[in-house]
Amino acid sequence: MDDLLPGMLHLSRDGGATLTRQLTDQLRDLITKGRLALGQRLPSSRQLAQSLDVSRNTVSFAIEQLAAEGYLSLSAGRRPEVAAGLSLDRRRTSSRSNCAESARISLSPWARGLHRANWPPVHDGRPRPFQPGLADEREFPHEVWSRCLRRAARNAPLRRDRPINHPPLQEALLGHLVVHRGIKAKASQILIVPTAQSGLTLVANALLERGDHAWIESPGYGGANVALHAAGAIVSAMPLDAQGMAISSAKDAPRLIFVTPSHQYPTGRLMPIGRRLELLRFAEAAGACIIEDDYDGEFHYEARPVAALQGLATSPRVFYLGTFSKSTYADIRFGYVVVPEAQIEIFELAQRHMGMLTSITMQDALAEFISAGAYLGHIRRMTRLYKGRRDRMLQALASEAGSRLTVEAPAGGMQLLARCHGTANDRKLSARLLEAGVVSRALSIMTYHKTDEQGLFLGFAAWNEKEIDRAARVLGRIVR
Amino acid sequence: MDDLLPGMLHLSRDGGATLTRQLTDQLRDLITKGRLALGQRLPSSRQLAQSLDVSRNTVSFAIEQLAAEGYLSLSAGRRPEVAAGLSLDRRRTSSRSNCAESARISLSPWARGLHRANWPPVHDGRPRPFQPGLADEREFPHEVWSRCLRRAARNAPLRRDRPINHPPLQEALLGHLVVHRGIKAKASQILIVPTAQSGLTLVANALLERGDHAWIESPGYGGANVALHAAGAIVSAMPLDAQGMAISSAKDAPRLIFVTPSHQYPTGRLMPIGRRLELLRFAEAAGACIIEDDYDGEFHYEARPVAALQGLATSPRVFYLGTFSKSTYADIRFGYVVVPEAQIEIFELAQRHMGMLTSITMQDALAEFISAGAYLGHIRRMTRLYKGRRDRMLQALASEAGSRLTVEAPAGGMQLLARCHGTANDRKLSARLLEAGVVSRALSIMTYHKTDEQGLFLGFAAWNEKEIDRAARVLGRIVR
Repeated sequence: MDDLLPGMLHLSRDGGATLTRQLTDQLRDLITKGRLALGQRLPSSRQLAQSLDVSRNTVSFAIEQLAAEGYLSLSAGRRPEVAAGLSLDRRRTSSRSNCAESARISLSPWARGLHRANWPPVHDGRPRPFQPGLADEREFPHEVWSRCLRRAARNAPLRRDRPINHPPLQEALLGHLVVHRGIKAKASQILIVPTAQSGLTLVANALLERGDHAWIESPGYGGANVALHAAGAIVSAMPLDAQGMAISSAKDAPRLIFVTPSHQYPTGRLMPIGRRLELLRFAEAAGACIIEDDYDGEFHYEARPVAALQGLATSPRVFYLGTFSKSTYADIRFGYVVVPEAQIEIFELAQRHMGMLTSITMQDALAEFISAGAYLGHIRRMTRLYKGRRDRMLQALASEAGSRLTVEAPAGGMQLLARCHGTANDRKLSARLLEAGVVSRALSIMTYHKTDEQGLFLGFAAWNEKEIDRAARVLGRIVR
Repeated sequence: MDDLLPGMLHLSRDGGATLTRQLTDQLRDLITKGRLALGQRLPSSRQLAQSLDVSRNTVSFAIEQLAAEGYLSLSAGRRPEVAAGLSLDRRRTSSRSNCAESARISLSPWARGLHRANWPPVHDGRPRPFQPGLADEREFPHEVWSRCLRRAARNAPLRRDRPINHPPLQEALLGHLVVHRGIKAKASQILIVPTAQSGLTLVANALLERGDHAWIESPGYGGANVALHAAGAIVSAMPLDAQGMAISSAKDAPRLIFVTPSHQYPTGRLMPIGRRLELLRFAEAAGACIIEDDYDGEFHYEARPVAALQGLATSPRVFYLGTFSKSTYADIRFGYVVVPEAQIEIFELAQRHMGMLTSITMQDALAEFISAGAYLGHIRRMTRLYKGRRDRMLQALASEAGSRLTVEAPAGGMQLLARCHGTANDRKLSARLLEAGVVSRALSIMTYHKTDEQGLFLGFAAWNEKEIDRAARVLGRIVR
């Protein structure tokens, strides 16, 4: 037996892996493949070294490694012994296919239901017109941003105090939100989260328990629908009237209401002050909280943006949700949530429990980007640019498909809703457009109550006028 | 009435806010404060412009803005009218204190329970010795990293295809994990998540349904305990024996098992191959999945690290969890999960639903950091450095507190467990140490089954030898 082992080992001296490493790996293989049986003793390290023509240390290191890993057991004065319990019965299990095995993993009901959610809309490959929700990243000042990032990373060693939400970013962002969005808060009320969707998940989980009622707009944002469902809520789809979500006392009283008052998603309409106050009064009376999703409230074309619900509320029940992914560009994904002051501590704890923390270096770079004026400058420039693109889009749609589509000019934002006339099927239309290289989102997919309305949700911000015209022609051809 | 209004308005021409803005804000204020009542008509814009001595456009813009916001209603040929439904009854609500209001927000049972979880250990201010789990960020190559970040941000416009998990990072990381951790996977099986804790949350939610049984080690990692509980599991604390988590068929069969086989958290022990295989066989028979948390498996001092469970398993039921926060430094928080191949699609969808996405620029910077060799170089240098610090720590603890503490040298990682003799109370000790500027974590807080064992969990990686000696003296004085 003793001289059998060296014949099973082949050490190469071609300068690849070290001799110790080769020996360790080969011995481990012999054990796991069953060629060295349980209880079998290895030659002594002296014998093994001699027969392999390697140093005694080489063998000793390999033996110690395998003992540390548990393949060999050592006892003083005896030769190393192959340890017990090392068979995984590989032959039996490897004959099954990977597929059959993995089918045995049982997913949670939540995970099993993800495919049915119709959210998010995922398109392979690069963005194509008129994919909704995209900022034009070609217009983003990447050079300025890369300098902010570099400086923040270099300064990292100077920042040893690290709250999870970076005060300089909280301050800079608050300054912006107070002036431009009418937010009333202290800087410490702002939580910085990896994405707006993670902020939604966080708030939904911290407020809702299984069986609570929650309201969403219909048509409305799919990401809210899935997040509220995932948190266990019974979600009611509240149809819109001309002012936005219609408040109905016939529905079960909600614990949480999700709204997009700046530019209703997907209609682009602005919720007027009357409905805002009505909603706040209703929430107060019902003891409900509100998530105000201001995903692209920065871009407003007709008049100055209306003050956020958060700033209008007289009792702290509004969670204001924002994102940098529209106001900068898609890869700066960070979201933020303004939480009521009394809830800061519990929400920061919840943030840690769910692991929704972000790099302070990135936060610091964003703080500089805002403080230096680059953020507001970019928003101003994009507002002019996007307004022009909105108008071009309205024009192009009118001339290419005016007889088939009714388009309401959105007050702001990056997308618009084109309603279909007659008996159109928006999902089929959307599928045919996709084949032709034009991305849209069917209104009926975003509508959660029974209605015949059909339409196409189209983004205009990320494409220049030429691209808009070209894609509108394709769209016109298919719609007609 | 008509001439009352101008007297209520005071426009300043000191070059601050524009006249339009001042007028809009002041009119809005008059309405919300009830000084202009519901149904009241404003003067015509011509009259108003005249009496305020501003241009007619200035007034028109303000009126249009307020109409857009819903404060005024306009109809052709008539003067603007204050719209209905604008009272929030501020007097009534503002008399209540904010505190009383916020108390009316009812949190979910999960959120209400966060304070009881005893996790995470949060220390104010900058890190102090011997706070566990910290890499030495002073040794991190910040300059190299900042260049990687800058380059990645500059190259962002070139990357328009954007899967949520960046293939170059998946490839680079896989190359590392295959060679150094024995992982067997395709690159696409690696999900990049904001933090390891968010990875835990993701896997727990995708696998567990309410009432499922899950096992954790005891003592063990608190972050796993809270994540499994949050996902609705009934969590069983499995005591350790010399080889790690003891497998007991007396317990309810688990759906999910959380283990730290590389360096058991907090004992620092390595799970030998025999127990690894036993655990895999058990999971297979029980139809259970395993989360293998390899949080600091990169740093191994005695022998080469043992192959991960993930690579040993013959059926795809192991979710391998890693983090960059230990192998680089705390601010590069990204975690990663290697999921079974058949589960990639559903897990990427779950990642989107929970919003656990990260910046591709950051992912790209990490890919370069790894590919250029900086990652492995840093790990190698830190392994030597941390080994020296571990030895210094063992020495210092032996000489300062040898009679009171028993310390087992951890096989690797960044921290060690010092067990207390006799009737010590580790929580009281830990609190007294904190007052003296030394951070520790009481073993009893991380122990989830009934036992009298007391100990202090201490990090050694982030402090140099002088700092270790100094803090060990403080610790010795308090423990004696």
